[in-house]
Amino acid sequence: MKLAALGEFDLIERIKKSYGSEGGRIVRGMGDDAAALKVDTDSLVLTTTDMLLENVHFDLKYFSPYNLGKKAIAVNISDIAAMGGSPQWILTSLGLPESVDGSFVEQFYKGMSCLSDRFGIKLIGGDTVASKGGVVINVQLIGTVNQKELILRRGARAGDHVFVTGTLGDSSAGLEILKKGLWGEKKRDEYVDSVNRHLTPSPRVDEARYLAAGEVASSMIDISDGLVQDLNHICTESNVQGKLLIDDVPISDSYKYVCNEMGLNSHLSLCGGEDYELLFTVPPDKIGFVDSFREQFSCGVTRIGEICHGNGVSVYDEQNNPVELEVCGYDHFKN
Amino acid sequence: MKLAALGEFDLIERIKKSYGSEGGRIVRGMGDDAAALKVDTDSLVLTTTDMLLENVHFDLKYFSPYNLGKKAIAVNISDIAAMGGSPQWILTSLGLPESVDGSFVEQFYKGMSCLSDRFGIKLIGGDTVASKGGVVINVQLIGTVNQKELILRRGARAGDHVFVTGTLGDSSAGLEILKKGLWGEKKRDEYVDSVNRHLTPSPRVDEARYLAAGEVASSMIDISDGLVQDLNHICTESNVQGKLLIDDVPISDSYKYVCNEMGLNSHLSLCGGEDYELLFTVPPDKIGFVDSFREQFSCGVTRIGEICHGNGVSVYDEQNNPVELEVCGYDHFKN
Repeated sequence: MKLAALGEFDLIERIKKSYGSEGGRIVRGMGDDAAALKVDTDSLVLTTTDMLLENVHFDLKYFSPYNLGKKAIAVNISDIAAMGGSPQWILTSLGLPESVDGSFVEQFYKGMSCLSDRFGIKLIGGDTVASKGGVVINVQLIGTVNQKELILRRGARAGDHVFVTGTLGDSSAGLEILKKGLWGEKKRDEYVDSVNRHLTPSPRVDEARYLAAGEVASSMIDISDGLVQDLNHICTESNVQGKLLIDDVPISDSYKYVCNEMGLNSHLSLCGGEDYELLFTVPPDKIGFVDSFREQFSCGVTRIGEICHGNGVSVYDEQNNPVELEVCGYDHFKN
Repeated sequence: MKLAALGEFDLIERIKKSYGSEGGRIVRGMGDDAAALKVDTDSLVLTTTDMLLENVHFDLKYFSPYNLGKKAIAVNISDIAAMGGSPQWILTSLGLPESVDGSFVEQFYKGMSCLSDRFGIKLIGGDTVASKGGVVINVQLIGTVNQKELILRRGARAGDHVFVTGTLGDSSAGLEILKKGLWGEKKRDEYVDSVNRHLTPSPRVDEARYLAAGEVASSMIDISDGLVQDLNHICTESNVQGKLLIDDVPISDSYKYVCNEMGLNSHLSLCGGEDYELLFTVPPDKIGFVDSFREQFSCGVTRIGEICHGNGVSVYDEQNNPVELEVCGYDHFKN
């Protein structure tokens, strides 16, 4: 059913029935001028927002509405996790061209609820408007964090170790496969991991909560712009320098395969964005966390450098020689 | 300076320096993965979001970036006010075409801060991305309300009186003037009021807070879709019927003038949207509020009908004859 026939209010009613929540700490969810929420007395409110535009952040040629919904919530969950928080409530604004089908919206919310159900996130509002351009998505996620467990970007100190979860570069490799039209009807097994990392990233909520509850990390960020650029964000906010050991940056077998086969720049793992792994710093006396973290979580965690006095990020090879990188990471108005 | 030369991070830095806030209840503002906020123990968190798209919600032919910023925040402030709350913190997502100038962003935020300064609202985050279509704006506003002062749509009861602040239809009349290209270099005095009501609506925060603190209103909504449709939202949520007296609906002299001159449908005051006045219901024993409200606020307040058992909205003329209206108000996918 086309949206023009369905109408905005029917659409909102449908979404509300399927996903809208009320009760508990949601005093009022969807269906009013604003949502009204109760927050525990010792908690801070965390809030983040991300805008995703068709043909800038995603291409409907390879993004199904289901995966789009899943990714739109995932990138915001990742931001709340990177503060040490628990994601709680979501508001979704959708700008939809008239040509879009009612099933697009249905699939989008189904994809979203795949992750919202997993993390106990409730849909509490949003806005649905007609778009004369492409599909426009804006997600706003609200979370909470116990005040003493909040992890900011600005806490890194000289002497801290730099760690990252999982592997890097996979999402960028996957994007290359998709952009080159190599993810057609015959899906090659060697491409699955990279492509999935790009289409449906998995935010590290439990891992981040573990680091927050144990007060392990002195600073934390999620990798959305790329390792070097995101470490630089930590360094700028903390007024320190980051030293990265390029050969220690964890990469997956499938990433290696795709890079080799496609002749991709091997610096994708340092500069490519959207891996949504956690990048964090750990003071020397907390370094013992590594073993128990590895026992508990399958994603792995790797030491990839250290924090020093100074500013900016420097990259070194195995022989401790500085490596020059071209401008790295994604800047929306410079690329 | 073009955005392509300025770059995303420089742009964020500029905005942060000019408008970013920290301290007090803002534990962390802009510059991290999420903002972190302290909320008083007896307060509820209110949150609302609105998406505005170029050529759907606004035309840059007649919307200056300054007025656009002002309106983008105004419509969200109006939503928080309609819950009885105080607006507190704002996050702004902007999708900008490469062609847009740095001064566009500067003017947009200046317009926004005109209202945020007035109401003590602090900018705490957002997202800035490139757009391959037109300008995309998504504003998310967070407010707070003392739990016992919260006013929902669902509280209207049979016997309540229906009131509205200010005058209605002005914004729609202004939009007609703008759309017909009649707001050119020579700005006619007779058009100023209507056009300003459309370009820079004034949210009724103090008026709404007065109604909330005095526990006067049993239900409330702001008029964004149009009087009939918004009263219908109250009736649906409250499971009651609304009776509107068409001849009592307050209209301004400039609205009358524009309607006459342009031959506009006289039902614009019932069906036109975006007036951002307060529509609310008052139980019979609270009706005494009217005099003190009138003394305190210059916008005026008018009784325009009553709440009965039943459902939907009916409109009556002076002789108590029912008036048939065509489908009225704005539905994004049906217009």
